[in-house]
Amino acid sequence: MASAGRTTKSPRLPPADRDLVDMLVIANRVLFDHDVVDAFGHVSVRHDRDLTKFLMARHLAPGFVAARDIVTFDLDANAVANPAKRYYSERFIHSEIYKRRPDVVAVVHCHAPPLIPFGATRTPLQPVYHMSAYLGAGTPVFDIRDAAGMTDMLIRTPALGAALAETLGDKPLVLMRGHGATIVGAGIPQAVYRAIYARLNATLQMDTLRLGTPIYLAREEAMRAAASLDGSLERAWSLWADTARAKMKGRRA
Amino acid sequence: MASAGRTTKSPRLPPADRDLVDMLVIANRVLFDHDVVDAFGHVSVRHDRDLTKFLMARHLAPGFVAARDIVTFDLDANAVANPAKRYYSERFIHSEIYKRRPDVVAVVHCHAPPLIPFGATRTPLQPVYHMSAYLGAGTPVFDIRDAAGMTDMLIRTPALGAALAETLGDKPLVLMRGHGATIVGAGIPQAVYRAIYARLNATLQMDTLRLGTPIYLAREEAMRAAASLDGSLERAWSLWADTARAKMKGRRA
Amino acid sequence: MASAGRTTKSPRLPPADRDLVDMLVIANRVLFDHDVVDAFGHVSVRHDRDLTKFLMARHLAPGFVAARDIVTFDLDANAVANPAKRYYSERFIHSEIYKRRPDVVAVVHCHAPPLIPFGATRTPLQPVYHMSAYLGAGTPVFDIRDAAGMTDMLIRTPALGAALAETLGDKPLVLMRGHGATIVGAGIPQAVYRAIYARLNATLQMDTLRLGTPIYLAREEAMRAAASLDGSLERAWSLWADTARAKMKGRRA
Amino acid sequence: MASAGRTTKSPRLPPADRDLVDMLVIANRVLFDHDVVDAFGHVSVRHDRDLTKFLMARHLAPGFVAARDIVTFDLDANAVANPAKRYYSERFIHSEIYKRRPDVVAVVHCHAPPLIPFGATRTPLQPVYHMSAYLGAGTPVFDIRDAAGMTDMLIRTPALGAALAETLGDKPLVLMRGHGATIVGAGIPQAVYRAIYARLNATLQMDTLRLGTPIYLAREEAMRAAASLDGSLERAWSLWADTARAKMKGRRA
Repeated sequence: MASAGRTTKSPRLPPADRDLVDMLVIANRVLFDHDVVDAFGHVSVRHDRDLTKFLMARHLAPGFVAARDIVTFDLDANAVANPAKRYYSERFIHSEIYKRRPDVVAVVHCHAPPLIPFGATRTPLQPVYHMSAYLGAGTPVFDIRDAAGMTDMLIRTPALGAALAETLGDKPLVLMRGHGATIVGAGIPQAVYRAIYARLNATLQMDTLRLGTPIYLAREEAMRAAASLDGSLERAWSLWADTARAKMKGRRA
Repeated sequence: MASAGRTTKSPRLPPADRDLVDMLVIANRVLFDHDVVDAFGHVSVRHDRDLTKFLMARHLAPGFVAARDIVTFDLDANAVANPAKRYYSERFIHSEIYKRRPDVVAVVHCHAPPLIPFGATRTPLQPVYHMSAYLGAGTPVFDIRDAAGMTDMLIRTPALGAALAETLGDKPLVLMRGHGATIVGAGIPQAVYRAIYARLNATLQMDTLRLGTPIYLAREEAMRAAASLDGSLERAWSLWADTARAKMKGRRA
Repeated sequence: MASAGRTTKSPRLPPADRDLVDMLVIANRVLFDHDVVDAFGHVSVRHDRDLTKFLMARHLAPGFVAARDIVTFDLDANAVANPAKRYYSERFIHSEIYKRRPDVVAVVHCHAPPLIPFGATRTPLQPVYHMSAYLGAGTPVFDIRDAAGMTDMLIRTPALGAALAETLGDKPLVLMRGHGATIVGAGIPQAVYRAIYARLNATLQMDTLRLGTPIYLAREEAMRAAASLDGSLERAWSLWADTARAKMKGRRA
Repeated sequence: MASAGRTTKSPRLPPADRDLVDMLVIANRVLFDHDVVDAFGHVSVRHDRDLTKFLMARHLAPGFVAARDIVTFDLDANAVANPAKRYYSERFIHSEIYKRRPDVVAVVHCHAPPLIPFGATRTPLQPVYHMSAYLGAGTPVFDIRDAAGMTDMLIRTPALGAALAETLGDKPLVLMRGHGATIVGAGIPQAVYRAIYARLNATLQMDTLRLGTPIYLAREEAMRAAASLDGSLERAWSLWADTARAKMKGRRA
């Protein structure tokens, strides 16, 4: 499935910006530090010079990912630069979403524990506070059983990736029954931010439902708050990235 | 909105005590270490030599704040010393409370997760033990929708700050529906202490409500216990500040 | 209330064993590391050479306690060696228990969060597994309101200490409504062990009650399991003490 | 009960592979790092050159285990190489399972808190997501009271070990009422993986049951997902082992 060699020097595929690769590496660590991913899960970013390609680590735990592990894939999830022995079997989650969503620049796939109950019941995930206001846009649930009957639950094919992308539609997040969630963003900081606060909101919403009748953000409140928060992403990203960099350095030292 | 330059040498605005600035920096770190604030949230203190001014960090994650980031604001939330490029959009929470509450010397604004369910339901936050006894004074809930209809949930204007301060009244804490909480104190240690134990009490109260019928502190017990605890603030503050200082040092090293 | 000077050289009060003092210091750190105590709470041990005395830190957060902070008290809670400026106001918890319970060698007083709901409701704390089997002996609840009406919730006097000790009776633990718990043991390792697993059991019992109808340990199972576990205390204590010592060393370095 | 000396040089008992011993040491640390074991609990592996023997630490907290502490036992739980002063009293859990289950190469026994409520109620542990899909094979509950009436809850004899192994049957996990769980695998990474995700699933299932009506993995989904996950064990094991090794090194330094 991987291409037969390095093609990074091809005139048709310019190398991705180094800072983008670095940001993707840091995103892996930030998601790990915030318990969004553990040994499993992955994050990708669209290639900055070729919108028909995306970058993602080879088959590796996110807490381990370094720049040398970043592979370039095309929108059929074929490796086209820096190929490796093995890739995430679910890379079609990413490729099929990039294919259908030109607005999406980054994709996070995770099994963050607090999100699982919302995929496994009919209780919709809704924003209890402004930090996760973006959930007000809707949080569809994908059940792989509807798409393909009995499976191993994994998005192993382009067809399953397409079915997931269809359920995602134009939303920022799709829950996956018995599996996890996939979150998209207009850039790495936004996708990471959304993943971190989706997880937090899930815990808070469970607590709120046990405490009384929740007053969720109204749709208009949610849309306005989400837009405002987007203006402060940098404050959060710089803290998270700096902390992750300090840890990476400490480990190497 | 920021003043047009440094005015710290103006005869009309004496510089704040260095120890007070240091304490404010440490308060940012302590609140971060105790999961009261994350990349968001802020803490301020009234100026020690000019009661019509207060000190607060520029637009920055609390875990990052250093002495050089502390800006002096007047009670209309205009920067009057050590101006920066950007300020917290919700600085009016602080200015309007200082305006109305001469007894208040420090203000914490946070989105501490366990407090969110109490803002999002009609279940009142009440003290389940003596450590959070001060909650017995009352814990009003501010709903921005009542004050201004559909918003982005943020206290972006003096008018919204005033509405919040009105709901706070003479209490130590106000919950903010779909947003978080604001806690005040007669000094930094008290405001920080109150924020940390409000968060703990919220978790405990949810647990207690699930376990049986809670016996809350009686109002008289609460008032007496709160007064007693105030006499031991220093024991807690010295532990927290020392731990935060050790971490800051470790990071720099 | 403190004696008028050092009396450690008095022929009538031999100094406590250095290892015992060291163990008490470590117990403070272990309880802090396991979230049994935070900035508040205290642990004491009966004097090894004079059973009418006990050792406990001066008024200080447990995470800070060092050998130099250990004060010797008599059974009226008067400092009789290494006096300090200030003592824990609740030292009568310790003195009155030592007075009535010759079998008790160590006492832990804490506000461990998961124990609070069991003091604040009528649901009895019961052992859900063998690790906390000792709870099968009974877990009385002390309500200070029954003893003294409206108070600040603290055990500030010998009379309140005596009332608490009466409720404790011959049990290993007494819950204190709206306050915390006091746990006793035949030595520091046992008292610390019991405190750590009482806290864990509280969380587990709350989870179990939400999940279904709990099958608690039968009384005979509990008594037998508690006796067996006492034979393995050393395995746990050595791990905890070693970890705490490594942290203390790391901090000093 | 221990043999009368070292017999590792006996021609009849070849030494275990050094890498296997190292992996067992690391497994102890990994299980400790993931809160599967605390000061209690144990993990064993079948001898690679003699299937009638297994390796396990002497009586020691898992967080302390080093290669020198690994003892070789026969299937009656007698120490036959590197004997020590004291062994885990529950080593019969391991010996009786290895006796009956030729497919089992590693065994984990733990008291992981979230698993306790499932042993203490009649609510069956079931997989809420693919990560713990292996639970779909069935999760029997062993009640020692059925096997032996009133006990100290411990598997102290071959007969009790046999009764536990009978309840385990051909399953990957057996819950133990009022005690914990025992998990088996075809190797150390699989047994460790299963233990870590059994614990996670328990928390998630409790959350899911409180949120709504759970849609568990169908049996076929579970079997297929478990097989797929087995193909990615290495990704998780390498992360966990590397992290544990870094911690061990940091401690020594």
